[in-house]
Amino acid sequence: MFKHDKQLLAEVKVERPNPTYATMLQEQLGGPHGELKAAMQYICQSFRIKNPEIKDVFLDIAAEEMSHMEMVATAINLLNGHDPTATSATVGSIESHILSGLNPMLTNASGELWTAAYVNVTGDLPADLLSNIAAEQRAKVVYEYLHRQINDKYVRQMIDFLLNREEAHNTMFRECFQKIQDTGSNRDWGIDQNARLYFDLSTPGNYVGTQLHGPTPPSFNNPQNPPQQ
Amino acid sequence: MFKHDKQLLAEVKVERPNPTYATMLQEQLGGPHGELKAAMQYICQSFRIKNPEIKDVFLDIAAEEMSHMEMVATAINLLNGHDPTATSATVGSIESHILSGLNPMLTNASGELWTAAYVNVTGDLPADLLSNIAAEQRAKVVYEYLHRQINDKYVRQMIDFLLNREEAHNTMFRECFQKIQDTGSNRDWGIDQNARLYFDLSTPGNYVGTQLHGPTPPSFNNPQNPPQQ
Amino acid sequence: MFKHDKQLLAEVKVERPNPTYATMLQEQLGGPHGELKAAMQYICQSFRIKNPEIKDVFLDIAAEEMSHMEMVATAINLLNGHDPTATSATVGSIESHILSGLNPMLTNASGELWTAAYVNVTGDLPADLLSNIAAEQRAKVVYEYLHRQINDKYVRQMIDFLLNREEAHNTMFRECFQKIQDTGSNRDWGIDQNARLYFDLSTPGNYVGTQLHGPTPPSFNNPQNPPQQ
Amino acid sequence: MFKHDKQLLAEVKVERPNPTYATMLQEQLGGPHGELKAAMQYICQSFRIKNPEIKDVFLDIAAEEMSHMEMVATAINLLNGHDPTATSATVGSIESHILSGLNPMLTNASGELWTAAYVNVTGDLPADLLSNIAAEQRAKVVYEYLHRQINDKYVRQMIDFLLNREEAHNTMFRECFQKIQDTGSNRDWGIDQNARLYFDLSTPGNYVGTQLHGPTPPSFNNPQNPPQQ
Amino acid sequence: MFKHDKQLLAEVKVERPNPTYATMLQEQLGGPHGELKAAMQYICQSFRIKNPEIKDVFLDIAAEEMSHMEMVATAINLLNGHDPTATSATVGSIESHILSGLNPMLTNASGELWTAAYVNVTGDLPADLLSNIAAEQRAKVVYEYLHRQINDKYVRQMIDFLLNREEAHNTMFRECFQKIQDTGSNRDWGIDQNARLYFDLSTPGNYVGTQLHGPTPPSFNNPQNPPQQ
Amino acid sequence: MFKHDKQLLAEVKVERPNPTYATMLQEQLGGPHGELKAAMQYICQSFRIKNPEIKDVFLDIAAEEMSHMEMVATAINLLNGHDPTATSATVGSIESHILSGLNPMLTNASGELWTAAYVNVTGDLPADLLSNIAAEQRAKVVYEYLHRQINDKYVRQMIDFLLNREEAHNTMFRECFQKIQDTGSNRDWGIDQNARLYFDLSTPGNYVGTQLHGPTPPSFNNPQNPPQQ
Repeated sequence: MFKHDKQLLAEVKVERPNPTYATMLQEQLGGPHGELKAAMQYICQSFRIKNPEIKDVFLDIAAEEMSHMEMVATAINLLNGHDPTATSATVGSIESHILSGLNPMLTNASGELWTAAYVNVTGDLPADLLSNIAAEQRAKVVYEYLHRQINDKYVRQMIDFLLNREEAHNTMFRECFQKIQDTGSNRDWGIDQNARLYFDLSTPGNYVGTQLHGPTPPSFNNPQNPPQQ
Repeated sequence: MFKHDKQLLAEVKVERPNPTYATMLQEQLGGPHGELKAAMQYICQSFRIKNPEIKDVFLDIAAEEMSHMEMVATAINLLNGHDPTATSATVGSIESHILSGLNPMLTNASGELWTAAYVNVTGDLPADLLSNIAAEQRAKVVYEYLHRQINDKYVRQMIDFLLNREEAHNTMFRECFQKIQDTGSNRDWGIDQNARLYFDLSTPGNYVGTQLHGPTPPSFNNPQNPPQQ
Repeated sequence: MFKHDKQLLAEVKVERPNPTYATMLQEQLGGPHGELKAAMQYICQSFRIKNPEIKDVFLDIAAEEMSHMEMVATAINLLNGHDPTATSATVGSIESHILSGLNPMLTNASGELWTAAYVNVTGDLPADLLSNIAAEQRAKVVYEYLHRQINDKYVRQMIDFLLNREEAHNTMFRECFQKIQDTGSNRDWGIDQNARLYFDLSTPGNYVGTQLHGPTPPSFNNPQNPPQQ
Repeated sequence: MFKHDKQLLAEVKVERPNPTYATMLQEQLGGPHGELKAAMQYICQSFRIKNPEIKDVFLDIAAEEMSHMEMVATAINLLNGHDPTATSATVGSIESHILSGLNPMLTNASGELWTAAYVNVTGDLPADLLSNIAAEQRAKVVYEYLHRQINDKYVRQMIDFLLNREEAHNTMFRECFQKIQDTGSNRDWGIDQNARLYFDLSTPGNYVGTQLHGPTPPSFNNPQNPPQQ
Repeated sequence: MFKHDKQLLAEVKVERPNPTYATMLQEQLGGPHGELKAAMQYICQSFRIKNPEIKDVFLDIAAEEMSHMEMVATAINLLNGHDPTATSATVGSIESHILSGLNPMLTNASGELWTAAYVNVTGDLPADLLSNIAAEQRAKVVYEYLHRQINDKYVRQMIDFLLNREEAHNTMFRECFQKIQDTGSNRDWGIDQNARLYFDLSTPGNYVGTQLHGPTPPSFNNPQNPPQQ
Repeated sequence: MFKHDKQLLAEVKVERPNPTYATMLQEQLGGPHGELKAAMQYICQSFRIKNPEIKDVFLDIAAEEMSHMEMVATAINLLNGHDPTATSATVGSIESHILSGLNPMLTNASGELWTAAYVNVTGDLPADLLSNIAAEQRAKVVYEYLHRQINDKYVRQMIDFLLNREEAHNTMFRECFQKIQDTGSNRDWGIDQNARLYFDLSTPGNYVGTQLHGPTPPSFNNPQNPPQQ
């Protein structure tokens, strides 16, 4: 069951309205690395998890991402201000001026509608955890980009908070991964010598890895003579 | 802030696994009239509502729709069972067998990914309430269709519960609409005689409304001579 | 059968080209509450309607929405002018400058492609009529937003005309709804006490409805103890 | 202005209901080469055409494609029959059983929602006509595929009619192309020797064209030494 | 097998960074008539072609389109420069500033994500070749539009090169079409008199074609009395 | 520059046609964890990489994923066989029977069109590498699911090969990550105490991590009293 508390997870305020920045911030409400995506991915993955401790972590974080979504939307709302002039936002989508009445929307900064294509769910815990670790890192990167685009100190404080929370989630997902890393798709599934080959298909340039090749370089690494099953 | 309680809003169980029906039920998880759509529409609309009572209703219902989503997903999960054979579901999407490991997904029954294009947000309270009244009615219709497709008594009980709840939400949104119906887009916005014309553009057949025409029929109702501004 | 008459439903002209406003007006050609959506929704719903009078209303309005679409596109075309400079439109999509040669497109103001996800069809007349009433209200709201963004008197006249026509359609759909409101999904479908409960899931704040609770308040309204089926 | 005549462009009937084939036929209602796509493409292209004769052809055909859409939808409706059992259609989308109440929908045979991404509009008449010639050919191919999947003689008659009409449209677009082929993007736009080179990038195999190379083969056709501007 | 050569197919450089034009050029990386679309369409069509010569042409061109995609992306990358300020691009999508770190993306100029809905594959060689001839023409038109929007001489040289190459591909596809034009969907498939009718559904205006009507005008060309099967 | 070699990267054959399995295998041609997605993600990310060794790895792998895509498509083509009966595939999309003439398509197993929403590109190397490690793991999981659904020994050999290659790519991306892990978004970006808090938002259940809390548990972990900036 989900419940809502009207107190925000952390205070949100802005120095002054800034419709252009409001549009940019939409990226983390309805974009591919935004809060809605994170919430949906973790809720959805949790549906089939059996390990109660890990299920708890996923749902703790999912509820928090929902709460972040609410914070970001609150900031967009304040930044949108009360001026319904479409040309007040000089870059990005103008949908909030002519479609939603300055209401935050489930789109990214360019007006692309949120899609479940952003959500990765495989039913395999190692794969899902790796997806989440990567997703948190991407969310952090976007917040760093957004941080550079504004001087409003309160908005920056909010971004700092959210960025730190993504870091915390990253840590939590990594800890979960440590615990289950020998299960599911990470179990040996009949890896053979093909997993140790290196195909040099882009030339010039020859990647020299150490772990991949092992002590003895593979006898075959020529794409001209591909392996025959 | 959103919080999660591991107790479901209402108990969910199934008589036996039924992968074909699991696929059908996906319609109310990730389809256009499903629970995710309802939750997202009401949360999103609430962001800019100023009237605290009405904002409360929207968020009460939004949190409940999130909880319904969890119930529907739980039922899908149980109906999917443990047989990973893709051909066990004879109609509908097979994604849960080859992509998500039997995990519920954010798609409709045919595998179409959920999109924010389903969500209607205008920033105008009368319009948003009318959208919600219509949305609840459509959700009810889909649950009626789904009810006919299964005999599992527990699944039917869950559908009965959800259907009744949509009815309750419908009632609540109608009450809100009564309160605010003379505000926003419902205020007179300079309606002129064009709002009382009837264009008979599909022939044969001539709609005779009473309220539209008023006591005096409009002098013009002929599409051959359209109105000149 | 559909036929086309080269005379527009109502005259369309503009004071002067205005590529920025042309982009905004795209919202009502290819956006979620635009004319194409309305036309498609009503045509599609009409396919299975048996009541000849109501089928007639749907098709009268659908043909008119097609005719509105033509008017909006004609206005966009005039507003686009003849200057192929992409930077002449300072906000919104630039697709018409680099992709369509200043031709109106089936996208919204931000360039999002029109999708049938905007169209609601349930095969149930009460639900479809409620969808249409809500859709007309949303269309009206968007025209009000667009009206504020331009001073061109001819464009404003066109918007006034279209806005009044949405009002007329709204009236017609409401009249239809009166006639069939006890059919389809509006028939009593075994509503039980769950339809009269109120779950207070967002706190603080406690919605107090009158119609919902009835003379005797429900004995259960505590989400901590959800109903057991 | 668009008008609707309740008489179909050509009679539509079926020998008996066939929900599986109804699903297949959805391909030509809401698929990429279906009737809605054709209608939308020609209407949209016509908005900016100045040549009145060619504009007339586009709109004659567009209105006919709208009328075909109505015929295809009528056939789907009859084939869907009255049995709301989702498993009665053994392949393809089940949306019409659980979402639309057996109403035809704006999707293809797999339930993918129609999108304006199918529509090609460039504002350049030679390019648009070539797009239309190709679109008519693809529509014909899909009708040929669909013809093979059913024995119902009335459905086959309808397909024969539609297929012949695509052929007629193809002829009409080709005639238009003859008339304007030296305009727009077909005018010489500074073609240089790069337009006569042949890059043999897939090996082995060496395409030997006659028109391309001319009497003297180009001195350069080696991708190892790409042209330097 | 695909291989990559780090040398570009043709040199790409720019006079100076130009983030606004970088956004416009995205149209030919991830738009409907861009290089990715062309590459994907020809690769995909080639999978079932049996004629080895024609398969070779499709794959030669597909590999070249992949190489064009790389050139366009390289130009976008240079035009994006190193200034991460979102407002430096005054029109079009701002995603590259806040989402991709100035990396080229698989979107069009308005940020619409690339979709396989752009790709036409029918398994019928005449239809596929006509699709490709039209696609090359549209690509040429977009390059002409883009050429007008910039003065950077190196970017113009690149566009000239690409435009000439589309012309070459057009020629090659036309030659292929000559060779196979009596096969597949171009074989006589039982065309009857319906293919020679002309329905005058848009009035006023009466298209007079010569080839279509033949020496004797069809006895039926009145939409009021549609053909009865 | 990309080049194509008509020899496949590894031999592909099938014991016998199997249209149902052909549909399933579409998941790895045009699905979210399929070969096209992998190829596009790595090509796109490579555009802005400066480190030549890492750029080489990305392009080696990208070219190989293109080659895998060709292998998967070849297998689908053989499995589709020559029977154009739409009902021969009993589950999954029927598009290949009625739209593409048994040609492989850029869709997943349910007919959902491939979308660039699947592609993650951030311009930040640590984030992109984590995305790729996760993507390879998900691809491996889907191949494991697909392996279970078929007995055809040659198809299983192909899946074994591809699965092993994803494992190799995973190893290569991990090695790259080791080398650059202290750069970009992984540099300390002003992490504060908020990164070490744990919000217990789903109850009951209390995740106890070790690394997150450190030697001293955070003084705050109560969502009732959220942090104040």
